[in-house]
Amino acid sequence: MNIEIISIGDELLIGQTINTNASWMGEKLFEIGTTVNWVTTVGDDHDLLIKTLEIAEQRADVILLTGGLGPTHDDVTKKAVCSFLKSELVVDQVVLEHVKKMFRERGIKMVKVNEEQAMVPDKAKVINNPVGTAPAMFFEKDGKKFFVMPGVPFEMKGIMQESVLPAVKELLNGKVAKKKFIATIGIGESTLFEKIGNIEEVEKYARVAFLPGFSGVKIRLIADGKNSTEADEKLKQADTLIQRNIKEFIYAEKDIPLEEAIVHLLTEKNNTLAVAESCTGGLLASKITNVSGSSQVFLEGVVVYSNQAKVNRLGVPENLINEHGAVSPQVAEKLAEQVRKLSGADFGLATTGIAGPTGGTPEKPVGLVYLGYADKNGAFAKKYMSKLNRLENKERFSYAALDLLRVNLKKV
Amino acid sequence: MNIEIISIGDELLIGQTINTNASWMGEKLFEIGTTVNWVTTVGDDHDLLIKTLEIAEQRADVILLTGGLGPTHDDVTKKAVCSFLKSELVVDQVVLEHVKKMFRERGIKMVKVNEEQAMVPDKAKVINNPVGTAPAMFFEKDGKKFFVMPGVPFEMKGIMQESVLPAVKELLNGKVAKKKFIATIGIGESTLFEKIGNIEEVEKYARVAFLPGFSGVKIRLIADGKNSTEADEKLKQADTLIQRNIKEFIYAEKDIPLEEAIVHLLTEKNNTLAVAESCTGGLLASKITNVSGSSQVFLEGVVVYSNQAKVNRLGVPENLINEHGAVSPQVAEKLAEQVRKLSGADFGLATTGIAGPTGGTPEKPVGLVYLGYADKNGAFAKKYMSKLNRLENKERFSYAALDLLRVNLKKV
Repeated sequence: MNIEIISIGDELLIGQTINTNASWMGEKLFEIGTTVNWVTTVGDDHDLLIKTLEIAEQRADVILLTGGLGPTHDDVTKKAVCSFLKSELVVDQVVLEHVKKMFRERGIKMVKVNEEQAMVPDKAKVINNPVGTAPAMFFEKDGKKFFVMPGVPFEMKGIMQESVLPAVKELLNGKVAKKKFIATIGIGESTLFEKIGNIEEVEKYARVAFLPGFSGVKIRLIADGKNSTEADEKLKQADTLIQRNIKEFIYAEKDIPLEEAIVHLLTEKNNTLAVAESCTGGLLASKITNVSGSSQVFLEGVVVYSNQAKVNRLGVPENLINEHGAVSPQVAEKLAEQVRKLSGADFGLATTGIAGPTGGTPEKPVGLVYLGYADKNGAFAKKYMSKLNRLENKERFSYAALDLLRVNLKKV
Repeated sequence: MNIEIISIGDELLIGQTINTNASWMGEKLFEIGTTVNWVTTVGDDHDLLIKTLEIAEQRADVILLTGGLGPTHDDVTKKAVCSFLKSELVVDQVVLEHVKKMFRERGIKMVKVNEEQAMVPDKAKVINNPVGTAPAMFFEKDGKKFFVMPGVPFEMKGIMQESVLPAVKELLNGKVAKKKFIATIGIGESTLFEKIGNIEEVEKYARVAFLPGFSGVKIRLIADGKNSTEADEKLKQADTLIQRNIKEFIYAEKDIPLEEAIVHLLTEKNNTLAVAESCTGGLLASKITNVSGSSQVFLEGVVVYSNQAKVNRLGVPENLINEHGAVSPQVAEKLAEQVRKLSGADFGLATTGIAGPTGGTPEKPVGLVYLGYADKNGAFAKKYMSKLNRLENKERFSYAALDLLRVNLKKV
């Protein structure tokens, strides 16, 4: 089975938007046991899109289109599909009701172009779009299957998960692929690779990928099998071999970010957390509150960005800042201790550092952070270095703080 | 002139590597006044690559290939090019000397596969690779021009800058393209489209695209011209027509997020800001502190996630919460007022709402937020609705709060 992805949009061709959609789709298709053969990116151009569809029709069996389904004039996908199918645009009542309902719920007035969003080619079947107004579509032409989705990533992802991936899976004739994620933190990709040892042995059972991100390195195992039992058995073998030497770095045996594991740990222990942030500027709190259910364990955060706020909001002694500087282990420790005390939480975490690009000195360069940790037994600080840009440093600092909590949480 | 990029590599099709090369190349070509028509991504597969070359040869005039030139067995580009050109691989002495020199300089021993890197198709002309050992190549076939480059980003970039971009520029005969962004907030894509009115009139001067994101809708204008003056003139005409009816929604005339515009506005006015967040959980503060230089205007944030924190940290009266609920205009207003007062900032912003997926009721559903605003003249709250998932709601809520500040900031 040959698969082609067609990504549509001028913004993809002029370097304004990187084609992460195709990458995500390729990964998800790979995970269910098949591989994309071509990705073709083309602009919002009616005629070029038709030519692209004609080529895809010849070489691929399943064609996934994304983009160009919005309400404005530069969205040409539906018209091109009509020409390609020799089909007419007609109003789909179900889609029209869906669009009306979404506007009603958001309390926004619908305008004429939104009604046009309910127009679909009469030879296409509408696929539900659980999160947006642009309708997704399916059609067949000479035995070739076409899925048409919006380019907005979260809409495309919703439709892929709900409809397209299950449909493609069905075409794979019982062949199954099972996957498992092992999420690690506090260890780099190459060290992890070395510690695991003989990867060739693991690859007898499953395909192994190392996926580094700010929230550590995730190991993805994919075992292929003629049936579910065979795939499960192979996955288990690979998993055992992988986990052997790296247990202390594993924070989850599924694809979740560290903040989710932390919230689960705190919930299990019936413990609470408060954070004091300087250089991470709210990102640490935001990560924790990304987790549904975090309100059970997260009491509060303070973003003490200015020195004045460190003193007034958390009672950090002014002379401590004057003596050691705001970016110091002494201040980090004090911030964690104070936010724990004032909030009444079981654990306090703090960050103070230099995210950059400015503000660094030879002694305290950009990328330096001191992380503070406090529990009922006391408080301490830990130094950590990152060497990336401002936003990436904020990410790294936040995860280093969460890892500090993960490691010490267990001991209390 | 039609341009096609062919990106070669299995890793691009299974989601392991995102195709940032094509994006970078598209941007650089756009900057010199031309646009890529297609990007085709294909795996390390000899036969599929030949088919891809045949299609590119038919539809494009300039074809840029990257990837698959490395020394290992899975790099198939040179062999496929040989088959496509009916050419033979021969040792290029200049390349061989270059490879030997690079190994000598790095003090690494050369192995046999490295010598094979000096083999090139006899009908291709070698292009200098200033930074690596894989030779880049140029060949012509039936008047179509092909450039072949390695996939390693810094090698590809070096070759593009030194050889390929100048060669493509020469083919353009002085033609240029100029672009401009108009960044809007507080108005949906379709309403924006309607307000602007006759887009066909604008498109006489420039290509128009609407790019929606959490930080509002950005409008991108691209004007083509026979020379720089003509392109500038057309861009100005289009810009004037676009801006006519939507002035109040424009926060920047360049491609920046709202938080950056806000930090600039506050800096210009020499004003300061503090925020109190419930449902956005630190994201609002984190967005502001993403902007380098925000420490000049952002004093502090408090993430008063629990009711206890709202009372203890900010002095919100307990009976106000009991009477109206934590998610209420009264509490939003009070949070903004209190954080402004306690921090000594000129402006206070606050959020209290239900990000979901749980915690909603019929009267206060998931997606409801009350935004609080305070300045020296007083405080008020504004209701806002979103209908997305937890993380997306947090994004929308944060930008709605920033927009509330943008609109009211000007009046003080």
